[in-house]
Amino acid sequence: MSEFTHFDERGRAVMVDVADKDDTRRVAVASGRISMLPDTLTRILGGQAAKGDVLGIARIAAIQATKRTAELIPLCHPIALTKVAVEFSHDEAESSIACRVTAETVGKTGVEMEALTGVSVALLTIYDMCKAVDRGMTMSDIRLLEKQGGRSGHWRAPL
Amino acid sequence: MSEFTHFDERGRAVMVDVADKDDTRRVAVASGRISMLPDTLTRILGGQAAKGDVLGIARIAAIQATKRTAELIPLCHPIALTKVAVEFSHDEAESSIACRVTAETVGKTGVEMEALTGVSVALLTIYDMCKAVDRGMTMSDIRLLEKQGGRSGHWRAPL
Amino acid sequence: MSEFTHFDERGRAVMVDVADKDDTRRVAVASGRISMLPDTLTRILGGQAAKGDVLGIARIAAIQATKRTAELIPLCHPIALTKVAVEFSHDEAESSIACRVTAETVGKTGVEMEALTGVSVALLTIYDMCKAVDRGMTMSDIRLLEKQGGRSGHWRAPL
Amino acid sequence: MSEFTHFDERGRAVMVDVADKDDTRRVAVASGRISMLPDTLTRILGGQAAKGDVLGIARIAAIQATKRTAELIPLCHPIALTKVAVEFSHDEAESSIACRVTAETVGKTGVEMEALTGVSVALLTIYDMCKAVDRGMTMSDIRLLEKQGGRSGHWRAPL
Amino acid sequence: MSEFTHFDERGRAVMVDVADKDDTRRVAVASGRISMLPDTLTRILGGQAAKGDVLGIARIAAIQATKRTAELIPLCHPIALTKVAVEFSHDEAESSIACRVTAETVGKTGVEMEALTGVSVALLTIYDMCKAVDRGMTMSDIRLLEKQGGRSGHWRAPL
Amino acid sequence: MSEFTHFDERGRAVMVDVADKDDTRRVAVASGRISMLPDTLTRILGGQAAKGDVLGIARIAAIQATKRTAELIPLCHPIALTKVAVEFSHDEAESSIACRVTAETVGKTGVEMEALTGVSVALLTIYDMCKAVDRGMTMSDIRLLEKQGGRSGHWRAPL
Repeated sequence: MSEFTHFDERGRAVMVDVADKDDTRRVAVASGRISMLPDTLTRILGGQAAKGDVLGIARIAAIQATKRTAELIPLCHPIALTKVAVEFSHDEAESSIACRVTAETVGKTGVEMEALTGVSVALLTIYDMCKAVDRGMTMSDIRLLEKQGGRSGHWRAPL
Repeated sequence: MSEFTHFDERGRAVMVDVADKDDTRRVAVASGRISMLPDTLTRILGGQAAKGDVLGIARIAAIQATKRTAELIPLCHPIALTKVAVEFSHDEAESSIACRVTAETVGKTGVEMEALTGVSVALLTIYDMCKAVDRGMTMSDIRLLEKQGGRSGHWRAPL
Repeated sequence: MSEFTHFDERGRAVMVDVADKDDTRRVAVASGRISMLPDTLTRILGGQAAKGDVLGIARIAAIQATKRTAELIPLCHPIALTKVAVEFSHDEAESSIACRVTAETVGKTGVEMEALTGVSVALLTIYDMCKAVDRGMTMSDIRLLEKQGGRSGHWRAPL
Repeated sequence: MSEFTHFDERGRAVMVDVADKDDTRRVAVASGRISMLPDTLTRILGGQAAKGDVLGIARIAAIQATKRTAELIPLCHPIALTKVAVEFSHDEAESSIACRVTAETVGKTGVEMEALTGVSVALLTIYDMCKAVDRGMTMSDIRLLEKQGGRSGHWRAPL
Repeated sequence: MSEFTHFDERGRAVMVDVADKDDTRRVAVASGRISMLPDTLTRILGGQAAKGDVLGIARIAAIQATKRTAELIPLCHPIALTKVAVEFSHDEAESSIACRVTAETVGKTGVEMEALTGVSVALLTIYDMCKAVDRGMTMSDIRLLEKQGGRSGHWRAPL
Repeated sequence: MSEFTHFDERGRAVMVDVADKDDTRRVAVASGRISMLPDTLTRILGGQAAKGDVLGIARIAAIQATKRTAELIPLCHPIALTKVAVEFSHDEAESSIACRVTAETVGKTGVEMEALTGVSVALLTIYDMCKAVDRGMTMSDIRLLEKQGGRSGHWRAPL
């Protein structure tokens, strides 16, 4: 059974050696959502068309955060992203907004953490911009959907 | 009805003027959890006592992230935190670890975003360190539990 | 005649002592503009209403940059901004977009550099987003318009 | 006619996919200038020889800023620069100092933004160090002079 | 017997609560030195007068590093420095350069770490700039010389 | 005799051109130590087993600092580290803790500065966490032990 890779044989944290890994194209897709009052959702969706573009700002925050993942997550390798895309969708029944981030690189390590960090910061930014009207918003289901590339190949989250 | 505070009357994003707010003691508490395979939880809890201290590292990552909140969240004011504490607990029935961050300052704006950013980065760090054995871990229920100080006074999340 | 303040009597760079300065409200307004092909201006202005919001993104970049001024400008003091606002206007005759940034704090040093850094990064971001269609865009007239607060009082740029 | 590349077909900002671009040697040269009172220019030029080396400090600030371009400009790709050089010249008739930055990499995207960011921060640093004696200094003509490498080949600014 | 302050009663790392501490003027002075080949020292000292100003660049690096101390040292509080000064001296008999950094603030916590971080980065920068000719340079005696302000009052290192 | 490489022929600082260097595997090992009161050492070593893990936190700080070397050291090239490992040992007779950092990359420049920066920040973090009980701790013997890869080949510090 595989071991935690971020510790050596004596339990000391390491940034693991990836020098011998191939430079392959790696893709990761992550998602999450933020639940809110129906009125808050209405305001956010209204703002996109007219003014006060909450989701446009959250998208920029997410893209910028993906670039700083290695500064935030202690044992992450620094990586040169070659693409980041951020999509939002909403669910009126659930009164929530979902975020989906796709990150790509050509490199030696995967970009799961970059995609997950992008989702987290997108949701946090939505929270920040709406908190004056809805302090109880909750972020959930932040998880990896899919990853490609590298030794472990293609992985998809179970439905 | 209150408005989104991060936009001016024409819908343009602004870092809102807080110069006239009082310098009061402000506290925010946020929490969240990450669900995982039972075996992953066992490994993490075992590591604390012996070697491979996942939660110790996640705590440091959370504290450091709170200090960089204003860099990550576009319209956040920079703030000098006076205290940050990070606690973890676990639930074997649910196979999850919960994180709770308390942030404090003496200043003109609240520290909700600092507490929420700390929780998010703690959970992301746990994901990063365990992803080689459990790629399907999911982060949920990231939300504000309580805030004190400032014009809006004491607020607690409903049960 | 006054001397450069960022050097000591032997010409060595210092971050000058401001401990004895008063904590007063300080405001700085800076501006600049970027000239472009008429077609580029048309695209940018069209994007605001419909899709591809160049100026919305440049505004966020500017706000974020003001918060990092002390990291970029070696002898700047770190400062906790209490407000940042970014406005754009355009001049069809000149085929240019102007940017104006207002920065405020309550503190011991002025915020001229924060306002000027915000303007510079707003214009650079516009350049970045449009460079594929107009590599010759030029940024000009980046300067301080006005400052208030502190020992030197109110200053306005001559017309 | 080419489109803005930083938006997808629905107008959403993206960090565009460069994974399929070749790793070629890329060079960009940018320039700009700052105008000042004749007395300020005299002091700066005097300082170089004797003490208070304004231009030496501005050079370091520019080099450091080029390395942080992707943090400042939201949709820029992170890039590993292989060379940065910063030159200053002055024009006594115009009472101005000009700055010229050359940036190079071997990679998938150009380094125009790195060169332009370096010029902007060099000029801002000069402003900062001299503002106590000359608040009206103005930065102008910040633009790309030349770029080489990549699909678009060699480009020179028209005279 | 006093305890380590950066852990709570259960041994968990915390950024300790300083909200109730007074805002007093705090000063810290730290020093350290780097030993090198006599020829390396000669080159550095020669460069100051003529060209290749190693110490001028190390001074700027030190000042900038003091501003980022809280990002580097996990449990440090963010602090707004009000002054930073960096001095170098040399000892030809020992073939070494000494660095001394004075940091000041008006705040709730001391600035020892800022002064020590400045010294360390100054010495590392000297190493970087001279390593092509002298890889064996060694940094030593990095320590606090003096601190003032705060509850613990005035402290001086024993001779 | 070789020249300082970080200056051009006129003594101006440059980030030197490494575009033509080979992408080879490069390793650097650096070390240093911090001396303290015997009682402080006892506490640190006790904490590892039980609570208050000073060295675990210093290890994380060191790994994170290696990733930010190019931000701290002005003329360093940005580099994508492929491995970082941090070891501590102690000497009761000397009452000191030694730190040893190994950094690796596959790239065009060496990683000496990354290893040395990691050692420095590890020692600074130990100082920070113990300074309340031992303000006189001193950091010494920070130096490169070994480097491999690149044009200059294998180098070892003389004993």
